[in-house]
Amino acid sequence: MAQAPHSAATREPGLSYRSAGVASSEEMRSFGRAIDLFRSTHAFARRGQPLEFPGVAEPYAAVLDLGGNLGLAIATDGVGTKLLVAEALGKYDTVGIDCVAMNANDILCVGAEPVAMVDYVAVKSTDGDQLLELAKGLVEGARQAGISIPGGETAQVAEMLAGGAEAFDLVGTCVGMVPLDAVITGERVKPGDAIIGYASTGIHSNGLTLARRVFERESWGPNRYVPEFGHTLGEELLAATAIYVDLALALRAAFDVHAFAHITSDGFLNLARLPATVGIRIEELPPEPAVFALIRELGGIPDEELYRVFNMGAGFCAVVPEAEAERALAIGAEHGIECWRLGSVTAEHRGEVRIDAGNVRLRSAGKRFEPLG
Amino acid sequence: MAQAPHSAATREPGLSYRSAGVASSEEMRSFGRAIDLFRSTHAFARRGQPLEFPGVAEPYAAVLDLGGNLGLAIATDGVGTKLLVAEALGKYDTVGIDCVAMNANDILCVGAEPVAMVDYVAVKSTDGDQLLELAKGLVEGARQAGISIPGGETAQVAEMLAGGAEAFDLVGTCVGMVPLDAVITGERVKPGDAIIGYASTGIHSNGLTLARRVFERESWGPNRYVPEFGHTLGEELLAATAIYVDLALALRAAFDVHAFAHITSDGFLNLARLPATVGIRIEELPPEPAVFALIRELGGIPDEELYRVFNMGAGFCAVVPEAEAERALAIGAEHGIECWRLGSVTAEHRGEVRIDAGNVRLRSAGKRFEPLG
Repeated sequence: MAQAPHSAATREPGLSYRSAGVASSEEMRSFGRAIDLFRSTHAFARRGQPLEFPGVAEPYAAVLDLGGNLGLAIATDGVGTKLLVAEALGKYDTVGIDCVAMNANDILCVGAEPVAMVDYVAVKSTDGDQLLELAKGLVEGARQAGISIPGGETAQVAEMLAGGAEAFDLVGTCVGMVPLDAVITGERVKPGDAIIGYASTGIHSNGLTLARRVFERESWGPNRYVPEFGHTLGEELLAATAIYVDLALALRAAFDVHAFAHITSDGFLNLARLPATVGIRIEELPPEPAVFALIRELGGIPDEELYRVFNMGAGFCAVVPEAEAERALAIGAEHGIECWRLGSVTAEHRGEVRIDAGNVRLRSAGKRFEPLG
Repeated sequence: MAQAPHSAATREPGLSYRSAGVASSEEMRSFGRAIDLFRSTHAFARRGQPLEFPGVAEPYAAVLDLGGNLGLAIATDGVGTKLLVAEALGKYDTVGIDCVAMNANDILCVGAEPVAMVDYVAVKSTDGDQLLELAKGLVEGARQAGISIPGGETAQVAEMLAGGAEAFDLVGTCVGMVPLDAVITGERVKPGDAIIGYASTGIHSNGLTLARRVFERESWGPNRYVPEFGHTLGEELLAATAIYVDLALALRAAFDVHAFAHITSDGFLNLARLPATVGIRIEELPPEPAVFALIRELGGIPDEELYRVFNMGAGFCAVVPEAEAERALAIGAEHGIECWRLGSVTAEHRGEVRIDAGNVRLRSAGKRFEPLG
């Protein structure tokens, strides 16, 4: 999963299931030991103690107790291999939006209001306009998220970057404010709650490695015009990630939102980032965007993989009291964001995400989906 | 310079002066336009407005006004090409200390107490023990700095990283707390103040690109035993960066520190990160550590370059009232850190750093040193 507290974003899935089993559980063992080590640092802090999220393995952001009911949310994430699409197109003025989106949307999920982000850019060279173009995207993202970008770091580390002269990396760290008694821990989620899905604006910033492989295997270059998109493949893959700050703040202002889920890497498995005391049942899916339909068709990618890797049309979800479901849909519409009632929280199948919608029948098993028997 | 607010760390200096002039000023123009763009985001924030640092081009960290006299300092930095030394040696359990040091030491410079850091690790593969070893260093750094590491991101982005199977990048973002009325803006620095230098623990985390080139040109491998060091070249270059948190907090508790300077990339030019209303005069230098003496000798590197790129023995400086100079030295000794009175703040040569100590005679001119005529 894509975000803090410590999580590993597997941005390099194979074209089919990973030969997961053994390797994956070994990875997880080593990663689990690292997590335990990091947890030991909570005792080191003189101030700003991190909150615990009981029953949640991977909250979207950490929350520090700054005293006086003030919580500081903090989350860090990069844009990943979407940057390779930007490099291929030589177009750098939108990935900054993705960088803000990946971070600010995570901050929302603990109930916080994003206030600022700092960026880290690794480049081969500071010549030319690349840094200025990157700044334009970051600033547009900041505008959409209602945050400042008060600092950042540009590191010239040519030897560390693979690719051409404009190879680069782009990472953000976002902070947000939240009253401690308003932190979303997921503990208020209960059976019968409705799950509302809000439309993504394309592939967002995950699954790009798999997507690129599928299209490259078919020799589809970034400049190929794709009728299904109405524009080129590169334009489609580079479409900026939606920033859901205004939507989420409006929902929170209107009623008691029980949880948010930012659908990033690990796709619909992100809905399992709730206390393990409930289950998630998805009975309706968003209309499948053309980009995912093409990836399915060209790559022969099964649903198990599609719903684990991509947002499949819903970039952000809210878990709301059943009585507020209609209002949650209306607020989405007011913000010009298509939205759907996707399903419900259940008392059965605790800790699982089950999708049973038309031809898509899946159940989560740890970090993957398997066919629903 | 190495840190937030937006600054470009030029980690790739040539073996001699860069053919600086034109290219550099063009870079700076593009970078300056980016800075202006980022500054425009200050108006976007609904809350947590960034503080201004009048007359300081590049404060070490941003400070957000969280209300109620509470300031949040935030800074981000990576470890840079020191990671290539770790990769060459296959030794990953100390660069996490460097990552904490680079960030926590910057947070100190605005008068804040570091409270937490999140990390971003980019790797080619999550197999093996590399991530666990990196975690060990981060945790040791957190222990030394008295902070938590409550979250982080591990991105598997093999296509983006140059080098072998264990190529990686490591970046941190640190936050700290500071009462708004205790923020160090440099405005209290005045002529007559003493400048105290505190010992580095080696090359720290900057200048590694230049250092590696010098030694590689001489075909010195990382496993070469170097009598001057009493250990191998690799061990010397990988020595962990000092974390000055306990020292700085003790100094602040004892008296009114006027400014701190973290001597990172851009070396002694960091002393110019003060309001441009004063000058800096260095009359004594730390004993030159063997690693810098060797770089000077083997590479034929002039003082202008050495004092611009390296810490030259002093990793952290404090600007203190003259009457507190002895106490500042005593507190260093109490913390087991060698320290020296390096010089004074002057009313002349405003905005300049002048070094006039023995054979070293330099004056700063923007982003470089030139011989003191």
